[in-house]
Amino acid sequence: MTAAGDPGGAEGGGATPRERADHEAVERANQAFYDAVEAGDLEVLGELLLDGEQGESVSVVHPGWPVLRGRGHVLRSYALIMANTDYMQFFLTDVEIAMADGTAIVTCSENILSGGPAQEDGSAGELVGGLVVATNVFRRTPEGWRLWSHHGSPVLSDGPDEEDEGTGTGGGYPQGPDESA
Amino acid sequence: MTAAGDPGGAEGGGATPRERADHEAVERANQAFYDAVEAGDLEVLGELLLDGEQGESVSVVHPGWPVLRGRGHVLRSYALIMANTDYMQFFLTDVEIAMADGTAIVTCSENILSGGPAQEDGSAGELVGGLVVATNVFRRTPEGWRLWSHHGSPVLSDGPDEEDEGTGTGGGYPQGPDESA
Repeated sequence: MTAAGDPGGAEGGGATPRERADHEAVERANQAFYDAVEAGDLEVLGELLLDGEQGESVSVVHPGWPVLRGRGHVLRSYALIMANTDYMQFFLTDVEIAMADGTAIVTCSENILSGGPAQEDGSAGELVGGLVVATNVFRRTPEGWRLWSHHGSPVLSDGPDEEDEGTGTGGGYPQGPDESA
Repeated sequence: MTAAGDPGGAEGGGATPRERADHEAVERANQAFYDAVEAGDLEVLGELLLDGEQGESVSVVHPGWPVLRGRGHVLRSYALIMANTDYMQFFLTDVEIAMADGTAIVTCSENILSGGPAQEDGSAGELVGGLVVATNVFRRTPEGWRLWSHHGSPVLSDGPDEEDEGTGTGGGYPQGPDESA
């Protein structure tokens, strides 16, 4: 249905075996990325990011954060997140993949359950649930698909009929979609 | 400095004329995208999105919103935003471009000044400023660079030393970077 060089889902009825294999490999790379964050494994995470000269072009936006660029900044930010969360679990839903010429864009919802460090009295840190949507861009490399860009953002509104709320924490945009419009 | 097929900035001292031309074309496409939103011109905006079969793989995340996929949903969301903002101006800063194999990732800060519709008494809608960071992915097409993915998110925290704040509206992530860590 989609030519190899064209953006488009690889799940169409006319997808070639190569496209299906690429699709599965990208989905595995995306899951491995979240597994590494969940496990607090900075070394595995580092292996999943684009490396070498390309590593400087890696960009990450954590929910509510500014842009971080380059492997060094990105890995330090994950070290900080891992140091401040004793527990972090991602349930990925609504995962969609678009591909073109060795680049894949994964969009998905991260249903997150996280907890801070244990309290001084030894009790567990507070557990917090959250919904984040992410756009993750992967590049095909000889070693497999590697993360080029991750952008996660909190879902602050998911209901319709809020278009008259004006602006809020959305940075100057009206809040909330209205699919019924 | 970077080979044509490798991700990386095109501004390096060793960039070829082709790379520099691509870089400038992507920057123009990115600016044109914001100009179209600013002008409330849905037709021009539609011309800047990937089209045809590829149009179904276009994804957009507005600040605080869930993922929207496909030209139809995306254009309807912009129609909603345009209908609810009489005034919207983007000052782009910190624009960086990474490129590989006909795909370009633009990361930038959108310094937004926006205003809602005029009040019933005829007075102007309230002006609101906001800071959004965006990751925009473009594809090279015979008609020029076209938007494949846009993900914007509000910057809720930009200060260090907030890593002990635990979780907030960031959907389960600790808030705020700490570049000094």
